Amino acid sequence: MLSLIFHKKKGLRLQTDHPVPQHGYDEALIKISLAGVCNTDIEITKGYMDFQGILGHEFVGVVVKCREKGLMGLRVVGEINIGCEKCSFCRNRMKNHCPERSVAGILNKDGIFAEYAVLPIDNLHTIPDSVSDEEAVFVEPLAAAFEIIRQVDVIPDNRVCVLGDGKLGLLVGQVMSLIGCEIIVVGKHEEKLAILKNKGIRTVLSSDFNEKGFDIVIDCTGSPDGIGIALDIIRPGGRVIIKTTTSKKRGIDLNHVVVNELSIIGSRCGPFPVAIKALEERKIDVLPLISKVYPLNEGIQAFEHAAIRGGLKVLLSM
Amino acid sequence: MLSLIFHKKKGLRLQTDHPVPQHGYDEALIKISLAGVCNTDIEITKGYMDFQGILGHEFVGVVVKCREKGLMGLRVVGEINIGCEKCSFCRNRMKNHCPERSVAGILNKDGIFAEYAVLPIDNLHTIPDSVSDEEAVFVEPLAAAFEIIRQVDVIPDNRVCVLGDGKLGLLVGQVMSLIGCEIIVVGKHEEKLAILKNKGIRTVLSSDFNEKGFDIVIDCTGSPDGIGIALDIIRPGGRVIIKTTTSKKRGIDLNHVVVNELSIIGSRCGPFPVAIKALEERKIDVLPLISKVYPLNEGIQAFEHAAIRGGLKVLLSM
Repeated sequence: MLSLIFHKKKGLRLQTDHPVPQHGYDEALIKISLAGVCNTDIEITKGYMDFQGILGHEFVGVVVKCREKGLMGLRVVGEINIGCEKCSFCRNRMKNHCPERSVAGILNKDGIFAEYAVLPIDNLHTIPDSVSDEEAVFVEPLAAAFEIIRQVDVIPDNRVCVLGDGKLGLLVGQVMSLIGCEIIVVGKHEEKLAILKNKGIRTVLSSDFNEKGFDIVIDCTGSPDGIGIALDIIRPGGRVIIKTTTSKKRGIDLNHVVVNELSIIGSRCGPFPVAIKALEERKIDVLPLISKVYPLNEGIQAFEHAAIRGGLKVLLSM
Repeated sequence: MLSLIFHKKKGLRLQTDHPVPQHGYDEALIKISLAGVCNTDIEITKGYMDFQGILGHEFVGVVVKCREKGLMGLRVVGEINIGCEKCSFCRNRMKNHCPERSVAGILNKDGIFAEYAVLPIDNLHTIPDSVSDEEAVFVEPLAAAFEIIRQVDVIPDNRVCVLGDGKLGLLVGQVMSLIGCEIIVVGKHEEKLAILKNKGIRTVLSSDFNEKGFDIVIDCTGSPDGIGIALDIIRPGGRVIIKTTTSKKRGIDLNHVVVNELSIIGSRCGPFPVAIKALEERKIDVLPLISKVYPLNEGIQAFEHAAIRGGLKVLLSM
């Protein structure tokens, strides 16, 4: 099958003759329909996570082989963390944190930039007919946006600042606005901020931004500088949520964190059912976030496009 | 009056002829009885906070001048943050975080290593007769220890690790053990850990320590290395509380924080009434934490003693 592979020495390349993966008893073989290129994929090609193999973890596809007959032929999205199912994290519905986990396209398991992929049946979520493939491919990052309000109590009184108008920033901005809190999204691209502005969400260009004293700041910049800005504009006692992972190391002033009793909260993968429901109920607009759809055999070009800072979502069609 | 002063160029020195401070309408003049040398005082002499003036912020004393007649002659301890009383933080009982605040002996206000000091009446708390001066001088750091359970929900099921067997570590260890959670205190000094061991608290020498997976880790090491150890032994989804401020910058791996969805929570000053009550009810043993009492005119030697890493509490008697 055709697949898009990253190898530390050989770099990113298309492989036309990759064997179709075999599915185990509790797994399903999925024919991938559409996949999204995420900033994490780009960071991996720079060395993040030391991963090698088929890249990609945002997808929608159709189940083609699986022991659960009810799933056959259905459109699905899939959670990317695969736990050992034995440890205390797996037993407590925290398989995202299983120390023995693999993560599709990120850690010890091939991803989904390919014609077919295998995932555990338990990781799959079916997609309602009213949600298109182009929308469903956003379930994984949208779930990551919803993760914030699963981790942190947010009340309508809170003043919230989202840093970054990349794909995740635009999703997080929309999710936070659902709560009804005072929100501002700071970005560098007028045309991207306009997507939120059109939904009535307050936005500002970073060059014009000079507010401080936020209760909650969410770093979706994808840049090593994001955390410093967040710590500068948070109020004492406030909470900074970090979504950004970078291949570069970042230093922070921990004295400032202690003296101002700040909380810094790392945030990663989130609840798929919540994201699917939000799409079904038309609460979140994802279609304006699509920049371009490339066929998988133009995967290299798609990556080059996605790697341009300030771009929107690049999709791969299989 | 005699006072112990830090000056960036002249260093630490005794001044015999410092004028007795004047108290304003809402303030009290306090004759200091006993004061504690804190690690923050030592860090200030290395450049932390860029402070110059009379050092010191842990004390017990007697009110000698004040418009509130009921306070005259009473033994008091004092909160060290002085807010503007106008901003939203001051109005919301968060004067510790007032952006215009001064902090006795730390920021824009003389401290209490002197015969007399002035503090706002509102900052003072009277000490019950059953609590001795030697105990009362621990109210400020003990309140800082209680601050942790004001900031972070801790339940008896939690596995908690306290890093550091300095003064604060020994207080935090005792406070956390009140909750009944599984607790271990890690330190470098058998004789100091013995203080907790005698109270039935589990301790371990850092050289023998190899546990991981804690729900909560509290960095009381006072060392730039503490945070790295804390992040290494915390479980995914766990909370790291930082008490340590250092004059040295510290770097942390924020990818680790994001991927493992960790929370890092800065913690500073705490609730005085809770600390006084705990001393009154004999819940916390502070007397074994005293290393030596120096008269104020031996303040320089007291600082040299206190600066030895691994020492216990050095007090100054006025």
